[in-house]
Amino acid sequence: MKRPTIADIAGRAGVSRSAVSFALNDQPGVSEETRQRVLAVASELGWRPHSAARALRGGRAGAIGLALQRPARLLGAEPFTMELISGLESELSARSCGLNLQVVEDTEAEIATYRRWWAEHRVDGVIVLNLLDDDPRVGVLEDLHLPAVVIGGPAGTGSLPSIWSQDAAGMTDVVEYLAALGHRRLAHVAGDPNMRHIVDRTTALHEVCRLRGLPEPVTVRADFSDEDSAQATRRLLAAPDRPTAIIYHTDLTAVTGLEVALEMGLSVPDELSLVAFNDSRLCRLVNPKLTALAHDIPGRGAQAARMLFAAIDAGPGAESQPAEPYRLLPRGSTGVYRTR
Amino acid sequence: MKRPTIADIAGRAGVSRSAVSFALNDQPGVSEETRQRVLAVASELGWRPHSAARALRGGRAGAIGLALQRPARLLGAEPFTMELISGLESELSARSCGLNLQVVEDTEAEIATYRRWWAEHRVDGVIVLNLLDDDPRVGVLEDLHLPAVVIGGPAGTGSLPSIWSQDAAGMTDVVEYLAALGHRRLAHVAGDPNMRHIVDRTTALHEVCRLRGLPEPVTVRADFSDEDSAQATRRLLAAPDRPTAIIYHTDLTAVTGLEVALEMGLSVPDELSLVAFNDSRLCRLVNPKLTALAHDIPGRGAQAARMLFAAIDAGPGAESQPAEPYRLLPRGSTGVYRTR
Repeated sequence: MKRPTIADIAGRAGVSRSAVSFALNDQPGVSEETRQRVLAVASELGWRPHSAARALRGGRAGAIGLALQRPARLLGAEPFTMELISGLESELSARSCGLNLQVVEDTEAEIATYRRWWAEHRVDGVIVLNLLDDDPRVGVLEDLHLPAVVIGGPAGTGSLPSIWSQDAAGMTDVVEYLAALGHRRLAHVAGDPNMRHIVDRTTALHEVCRLRGLPEPVTVRADFSDEDSAQATRRLLAAPDRPTAIIYHTDLTAVTGLEVALEMGLSVPDELSLVAFNDSRLCRLVNPKLTALAHDIPGRGAQAARMLFAAIDAGPGAESQPAEPYRLLPRGSTGVYRTR
Repeated sequence: MKRPTIADIAGRAGVSRSAVSFALNDQPGVSEETRQRVLAVASELGWRPHSAARALRGGRAGAIGLALQRPARLLGAEPFTMELISGLESELSARSCGLNLQVVEDTEAEIATYRRWWAEHRVDGVIVLNLLDDDPRVGVLEDLHLPAVVIGGPAGTGSLPSIWSQDAAGMTDVVEYLAALGHRRLAHVAGDPNMRHIVDRTTALHEVCRLRGLPEPVTVRADFSDEDSAQATRRLLAAPDRPTAIIYHTDLTAVTGLEVALEMGLSVPDELSLVAFNDSRLCRLVNPKLTALAHDIPGRGAQAARMLFAAIDAGPGAESQPAEPYRLLPRGSTGVYRTR
């Protein structure tokens, strides 16, 4: 690391280190001539003090932070994160604002990252994903006064503004559609049950089934990976009373589910219907194409960035906003179920 | 922005701001008792000076930088960038190192970003993508002494270590394979001809065609987007002497090319063969599956991160390394061409 240091500048300018420090910090203790020489050498060496650089941007770090609690290897496989980042960047790049990404192990590491980013002036605000029940991140961010926008909610985000996706409404749409197609045995391959949106979806699923007089649906947990979803799907389809329709928590897990169904000789959609939360190119490339609950993920990223800039500029008190609702896009993977 | 400031600490501790500054910077001018009180209040308020925080990490920023010269909206569509980031993160997360992402308009903006990151101690090094002919970034990074690893090369990277993909060899494999299948009229939907790897591929394509006695191949330029690739493919296929095989510079552009070929009523591979540089799930989900030149993109990201850490730790002089060669994976989109 050969970044120009105070010592480099001192050496080149032929003055002491403290003279350099005085000159660069515009403090008394050096002659005007020395100050000018030091500034010229510093500029020549490409040196810029932190404080001067920050002052140029009005004390801003010029970056926002996104901590990702996802195994690194999954980032490349699942479209959601990159589509969200793409939407964030569409707003950030217009402001020449950077994005600090940090993959973290768990919520504790995520909180430590927020503390460090804020204490070291590395970010002006953060985007928080996957709101939990009783989310410990909320209180920490409030205490730090670190501007933040939560994607999730609206309940449980304290004073932090949020963009709340309408997960219960999305699930309700799907279940009513499947019920209308004649499906009675539904299954749900769901993500982490500590996540607020998974709870909302699961509650809605069970509620609608109860209201419609359908049997109790099965919810099984699978993470974001292929392997986990494949295993969950195999178990569901090997059970004596296998479901006739499965709802997946992501597009990637649904694509894997389709592969497993075909591998097990089931005809989609004649014997089994499949639906994905999140739409992406993956859903449209498979055969049959996957029915999906679509929402504009880059649009949500851009909305989050705009809300975060507002929170950074105007301080706390920003309003939470609903995201646009999910749109159910029926494609080839769902069909009428006829009892045989 | 209510981050604790020197003034906040001064107010709470009941001392002057300069007393706080002396105490936090461990300079003379305050009593030991005051120093202790200031440090206690500062810690209580969650304040940490830049320099102290940096010192804890041995002067390191604890982050590396990646500037992306891609329109933000494309980041979500194309697997390459996210797979590369996924590979970088697999090494970064093990070291709790952050990744600073910045979407930039052009090379000039990218260079300005490097200067700013380095001057402000925001990154310890950078990964450079898409090496250009006479790349101006190389000289700037050398002058800054900013540790950097170039993905591309090995020629034209100056003293910077690089991971060079074997693009000429990959193209040679494909062309020889297509020639062996009976193809004579080849086309190449290529990216930016200022990029070194595009030049290498194009040169190899023309050279192998010449050696094999095939007609001069057609190279057309298309960016990374769907629209551009679709238009390029439509033009190629509408020409009187249309090619019997097309080689695309990315998986996404090849998937789009396949859609256009099917839309125009051509049978793949009977009337037209298609090959993609880069393999991903996209290639395996389409029908027919796309023949691809595969390389381990997350693996390359991880390799780049390891080389960058070595350059940061040990200083300049790190060796360039070849990436693993491309592997040609023939799938359903390529077949024997029979003259009709």
